[in-house]
Amino acid sequence: MPVSGRDAPDHDTARAGTAQSGDRRRERGTRSRRIISRHAVDIASLDGLDGLSFGRLADDLDISKAGIQTLFRTKEALQLATVEAAGEAFAEAVVAPVRSVPEGAPRIRALVEQWIAYAAQPLFPGGCFWGANLPEFDSRPGPVRDALQRQRDVWLGTLTRQFERAAADRRFDDDEIDLAVFQIDAVLNAANIALRLGDSESTRKVHRVVDGLLKSES
Amino acid sequence: MPVSGRDAPDHDTARAGTAQSGDRRRERGTRSRRIISRHAVDIASLDGLDGLSFGRLADDLDISKAGIQTLFRTKEALQLATVEAAGEAFAEAVVAPVRSVPEGAPRIRALVEQWIAYAAQPLFPGGCFWGANLPEFDSRPGPVRDALQRQRDVWLGTLTRQFERAAADRRFDDDEIDLAVFQIDAVLNAANIALRLGDSESTRKVHRVVDGLLKSES
Repeated sequence: MPVSGRDAPDHDTARAGTAQSGDRRRERGTRSRRIISRHAVDIASLDGLDGLSFGRLADDLDISKAGIQTLFRTKEALQLATVEAAGEAFAEAVVAPVRSVPEGAPRIRALVEQWIAYAAQPLFPGGCFWGANLPEFDSRPGPVRDALQRQRDVWLGTLTRQFERAAADRRFDDDEIDLAVFQIDAVLNAANIALRLGDSESTRKVHRVVDGLLKSES
Repeated sequence: MPVSGRDAPDHDTARAGTAQSGDRRRERGTRSRRIISRHAVDIASLDGLDGLSFGRLADDLDISKAGIQTLFRTKEALQLATVEAAGEAFAEAVVAPVRSVPEGAPRIRALVEQWIAYAAQPLFPGGCFWGANLPEFDSRPGPVRDALQRQRDVWLGTLTRQFERAAADRRFDDDEIDLAVFQIDAVLNAANIALRLGDSESTRKVHRVVDGLLKSES
């Protein structure tokens, strides 16, 4: 049966309505995923990604466990979403605020300050998210370890790029870059644990190490 | 009723027998605790002390869960016994073998070599036991955190004493000791994680940091 002239627009409107409600549903889903993942980051900074469960998130956030399961499906998918949310929060808290600082040595000092604030404030209740989770997943090949390692590489890459700039400015030796990045990452992680254990002296030690590494700057 | 002359020795023999079987029982218990704790260290180096359970140990070691429960009673007691067993294995693998090395700079180098071997071989399947567990427990006050922190202090104390000896030999500045110990501990832990993630370059970096710290030695 041929449709009348009026049917077509009606049909389009209906379709547009369905599409709109589909968009709204997706938006709601995205928003819910974000809220849940961000809370999952807090849990995982304290108790590790193994400490995550649909039930615990449902209890903490007072939402239905079934709803969370629908959004994430598997525990591994939830862990991966959590890792991604942690990476976004870290980039926003540590890397983004120093984008206007001159590259090279000044940017390295600024990144270190932001990192210390990130661990000391702390951004996540258990301190550094990677400090809490890399040691647990470093011996477990799989997508979660891969995601954590990729983020670690991004962070080390950020530091490396700034040391390369410092080297280009002749403020740093080219063949010392890898070692300097390794040392800065090492002392920041050590400071994160020391801070949790009540040793506030550790941030001063980080500054002394960075001063030592960048001494050719003066 | 007064006991006869013969009763006394008999009674003593019986008592001795009971004491002997009690001793044997205690010995068996001590041996079992040791075997179970040592396996628990392996699990906890991979999955953390939270990954321990009476059921998992019973399955792994093919012994009864009830027997393990009788020996340790609570999960926290099991965790504490595991921490203690890890400390003993570490002292035996890292600290004991270098006791004959001259104190000061040579002992520091020897301790670092033993530590790298401990993480690289590795002594525990998940690498460093404290690297795996301190980040998880550093935000959780309680007996397990206290025990882990005490062992960390013992290790840092061992390094500090050797740097003090190096300083006494004028091979090191007094006011740099705390910083040097902090840095060595930091780069060893960083190397432990890097090794788990497949970066074998990290041990070379540890050597360069130690060489840099002890450079006044030459």
